[in-house]
Amino acid sequence: VERVAVIDMGSNSWRLVVFGYEPGTPWWNLVDEIREAVRIGAGMGERLGSGKPLLRPDRVELALHTAAVFSAFCRATGVDQVEALATSAIRDAADGDHLLTQIEQTTGLGARVISGEEEARYGWLAMANSTTIEDGFGLDIGGGSIQTLRIEGRRLADSRSLRLGAVRVSERFLPGEKATPKQLKALRAHAAAKLEELGWWSGGGRLVGIGGTIRNLAAAAMKRLDLPDIDVQGFLLTRDALEELIDELADRPVSKRGQVKGIKYDRADVILGGALVLATTLEEGGFDAIEVTEAGLREGAFFERLLGEDGLFEDVRAESVRNLAHRFGHDDAHDLHVWTLSASMYDGLAAAGLHDYGQDERELLWAACLLHDIGVAVNYDDHHRHSHYLTLNAGLPGFTPRELILIGLIARYHRKGEPDASELGHLAESGDEHRLQLLCGVIRLAEQFERSRDRAIADVRVSANGDAVSLAADCDPFRDATVPIWAARRNADLLAEALGREVAIDA
Amino acid sequence: VERVAVIDMGSNSWRLVVFGYEPGTPWWNLVDEIREAVRIGAGMGERLGSGKPLLRPDRVELALHTAAVFSAFCRATGVDQVEALATSAIRDAADGDHLLTQIEQTTGLGARVISGEEEARYGWLAMANSTTIEDGFGLDIGGGSIQTLRIEGRRLADSRSLRLGAVRVSERFLPGEKATPKQLKALRAHAAAKLEELGWWSGGGRLVGIGGTIRNLAAAAMKRLDLPDIDVQGFLLTRDALEELIDELADRPVSKRGQVKGIKYDRADVILGGALVLATTLEEGGFDAIEVTEAGLREGAFFERLLGEDGLFEDVRAESVRNLAHRFGHDDAHDLHVWTLSASMYDGLAAAGLHDYGQDERELLWAACLLHDIGVAVNYDDHHRHSHYLTLNAGLPGFTPRELILIGLIARYHRKGEPDASELGHLAESGDEHRLQLLCGVIRLAEQFERSRDRAIADVRVSANGDAVSLAADCDPFRDATVPIWAARRNADLLAEALGREVAIDA
Repeated sequence: VERVAVIDMGSNSWRLVVFGYEPGTPWWNLVDEIREAVRIGAGMGERLGSGKPLLRPDRVELALHTAAVFSAFCRATGVDQVEALATSAIRDAADGDHLLTQIEQTTGLGARVISGEEEARYGWLAMANSTTIEDGFGLDIGGGSIQTLRIEGRRLADSRSLRLGAVRVSERFLPGEKATPKQLKALRAHAAAKLEELGWWSGGGRLVGIGGTIRNLAAAAMKRLDLPDIDVQGFLLTRDALEELIDELADRPVSKRGQVKGIKYDRADVILGGALVLATTLEEGGFDAIEVTEAGLREGAFFERLLGEDGLFEDVRAESVRNLAHRFGHDDAHDLHVWTLSASMYDGLAAAGLHDYGQDERELLWAACLLHDIGVAVNYDDHHRHSHYLTLNAGLPGFTPRELILIGLIARYHRKGEPDASELGHLAESGDEHRLQLLCGVIRLAEQFERSRDRAIADVRVSANGDAVSLAADCDPFRDATVPIWAARRNADLLAEALGREVAIDA
Repeated sequence: VERVAVIDMGSNSWRLVVFGYEPGTPWWNLVDEIREAVRIGAGMGERLGSGKPLLRPDRVELALHTAAVFSAFCRATGVDQVEALATSAIRDAADGDHLLTQIEQTTGLGARVISGEEEARYGWLAMANSTTIEDGFGLDIGGGSIQTLRIEGRRLADSRSLRLGAVRVSERFLPGEKATPKQLKALRAHAAAKLEELGWWSGGGRLVGIGGTIRNLAAAAMKRLDLPDIDVQGFLLTRDALEELIDELADRPVSKRGQVKGIKYDRADVILGGALVLATTLEEGGFDAIEVTEAGLREGAFFERLLGEDGLFEDVRAESVRNLAHRFGHDDAHDLHVWTLSASMYDGLAAAGLHDYGQDERELLWAACLLHDIGVAVNYDDHHRHSHYLTLNAGLPGFTPRELILIGLIARYHRKGEPDASELGHLAESGDEHRLQLLCGVIRLAEQFERSRDRAIADVRVSANGDAVSLAADCDPFRDATVPIWAARRNADLLAEALGREVAIDA
C-alpha cells in the first residue's frame, strides 16, 4: 500500500490527510488525518479594498507551528508522497509567498500556492469522482474565496474564483454579535452582483457543492430528517431547508450559532455568511437545491495522483460499491451469482407485469447483492445486521442518502425479518414499504437459490399462471440442486407477500 | 484458508456449521451455518423405561431429508473436512444405528454416534477454550441428556451423562399446556435425585454452561438488564434471575412461552423443563450462578482439529483479543506501542498513589489498546465509534459482557468525547464513571504520544508534585517529538479530570 499525504492550507482550517491506495488497482481509503484551526485568513476581510492585505502576526505564528507539526508527521509516518497546497488567503496576501518560504526554511515542507483555476480543477476532480454529475455547475465555498465551476460531459468547461469566501464576507458584512436584516440584505446584494457578473447561469440544472461550509449546512439540515447517523454524501440541500437554517442562525448572536443542531462550534462565527452566499447562488442560478459531496480539494489532489491528470472513475457508483465489497468481501463469485439470479427474477417479474419498478431500483438491488455478506467479517451471527452497519457507515459516493439507506436495508433483510422502511425518516416516499418488500423478497430468494455457493442454479425463469407465480430453477446438470431448492422453498414468503400471490419454486 | 464442517445431530435441532482457519496460526472464524429443527428425539421421553425406544417415523423422514441437504451442502461448497456427530437421542434409540446406516447409504454422509464421554470431552474443549475456567464444573443441557463435567487445572477430570435433557424431561413431566406446581415439583425432585447420585458437588465454585437451552435462558435474562445487543458469551446467569424466569414461564401455557422476551419460539415447548433442570443443578451443587458460553459441541469438535486432541489456547482472553485485532487491524506496531505507553502511565499513576485500580482494569486497558483502531477498516471518520461496534458485535470469548462493554467503551473514547457508562445498564457498578474516565484518559494520552506512529516517545514517566502531575516523555533521540508533544498537550484534559489535578506534559 502506498500512502500520499495531502496538506490543505485553507483560509479557515489546515488539514493533513493521508490516503492509502494499491497502485494499479482502484482501491483506496483515507487512513489518517490531523487538523488545526489556523485561521490564516482571519482579519483579511477587514483590509479588503486597501490593496493586498497582510497576514495577521498571531496567525503566522500558529501557521509556522502547524507546518512544523505537519512536516514532522510526514517524516515520522514515512508517507510516500506529500502535496502541500495553499489557497485563497495565502494567495491573496501580500506576504503569502514569504510565509511559504519561511515554512520551507524552518520545517523543510515545500508548499505551493495554487491558482483559482487549479483549485477549481481539484474541486472538479472531487465532484466528478464522487457524484454522477454529467452536466451542470459546481460550487466550492472556502474561507477567502468561492470557486464556481461549469461541468460539461463530466469535464471541467470553465471556472471562476470570486472573493466571496465565508470568512471574508462574514468579517466584512456581519461584524457584530447580532446580524441585522440590513446587513443580511447587503451581503446578499453584494454576492448577487458578483455572481451575476459571471453571466453563465442557465436557470437551474444540477449543482454540486464542496467545502466545509456547505457540508456543515447539509449536516444541520439532515439532522431534521430523522435519519440514521450517516455522512452528508450525496445529500440534496434544498433552498427551503437552507432558508430555514438561515433564519434560525440569523436569529441568534454569533456566540450561540454553534448550538444549532449539526452546526460545528468552530464554524459558528462564519457559517451564516457562508449560508447567505450559498442561498444567493441558488437564487441567482435558479437552482432548487445543491447536491453535497464529502470529497473536496484534498480528494481532488489525491484523485489526480490515483487516476492521472484527467482521470475519472468510469462509473462512480460501481466503483464505490466494488471498493466497499473489496474491503470486506470474502466470496465474489457468490455475490455476483446472487446478482445474476436477482436480476433474472427482477426482470422476469417486470416482464410478467408483476411489478413496475425500473432501472433505479434495479441498481440498488445490484449494489445490495454485492454487499449483502460483507457483515460476515464482523460475525456470521446476525451478519445481515453488520452488512447494514458497514454499508451505512462506510458510505457509497455516487448514491444519495436515501439510496444508501435503501441499499443498506436490502442487505439488512436479505436473510430474514420483515423489512422496515422507518429508517428512511423524512426521506421516505409513498410505496417504500412495498418497494423494500419486493427488493428484499427477490434478493432473499436469490441468496437461497445460491445457498450452496456453487452456482448449482444457473438461472431462474419467471412465469405467471393464474393467481400464482412460478419460479423455475435452471439447474446445472453437473451439480446438485438439493440445498438451493430446499432453501428457496422455505424463503419464498416475503416475495409472495410483495406480489400478493403464491410463489411456487420448481426445480 | 481451510474449512471444516461440523454437523451436530442433536435431539432437538440439527446444525451444520463451517469453520474457516489458517493452518499453523490461531486465526479462526465461523463462516457458514444451516440448521433444521429435526427433533429426532421427539416422543422418546414418553417411552422411557420401556426398554430402548424407537425413533418416530415422521422424525426419521425429516432426518433423512436433512442429512441429504447437509451432505449436498458439504459437497457443493467443497469443505475440506466433514465431521458429523450424533448425540443422545440417536445413541439411545433402538434404531439409531440403523438411521445412520440409512443416511450413509442414501446420502454418502458418514456420521458417527459419540458416547457420553466424547460428548463431555467436546463440551470441555469448548468451555476451556472460550472461558477462563481453571477448576470447577461444567454443564451441557441437551435435548435427550445432560452432560456434567468436573474440570481441574483446565483439564477434564470426570464426566457423567444423565438422562435429564430438556425434551426428555418436558415430555415426561410437563405433558399438558399448563404446568402445575405438582408437576414442577416432581421434575425438580427427579432431577435432584439423579444429580445427587453423582456425589461430586463441593458446595459452589465455578460452573460453566453450554447448549442451546442455557444460552436461550441467559439471553432472556440479559434482556432485562438494559444492555446493548450483544451475545450471551461470558454472562453470569444467577439463581435469582433464573427462578424469576421459571416463574414467568410456568405462569403461561406452552403456546405463550415464546412470548417471554428473549425466549426463542422453537424452544418454547421445552425451555421450562430445561430451566428446571438447570435450577436444580444450581441448588444441588450450591452454585450462585452459571457462566454461559456460546461455544459448544461443534466448537469443541473444531478446536480438537485446530489445536490437537488435548489442545487448549494458552490464554483464552489474549487469543480472543488478538484474533479480533488480526481480523481488522492495520498497524500492530502502533497498537502495541499505545499499550506500552498506557501501561507506563497506568502503573506510574498507581505507584504515585493517584489511582487504586488493579490488574482487572489493566487487562481491559490492554485489550482496548489492541482494538482501539480496528474501526478504521470501516471509515477513518468516527473510527472510534466503529471500533466500539466491531468489538461488541464480534465479541471476545473469555470476557464477561460487562468487561466486553468496558473494553468497547475505552476504545470508543480513545480520541474524544466524555466517556458515558450508561451502556453498562444494570451491569454498572459504583464508580464506573470514574473508572472509565481514568482508563480513557490514559489511552487517549498514549494514543497522542504515539500520534506520529513511529514510537518517537519511547516511554512516559509519571511524577506527582503538589497539586499537579507531570508526565515526562522519554523521547527517542533519533526521532522528532514535535507531533506527539503537540498532540498530547491538547488531549490531557480527560486524565486531568479523572485525577482531579493539572497534568503537565514535559518533553
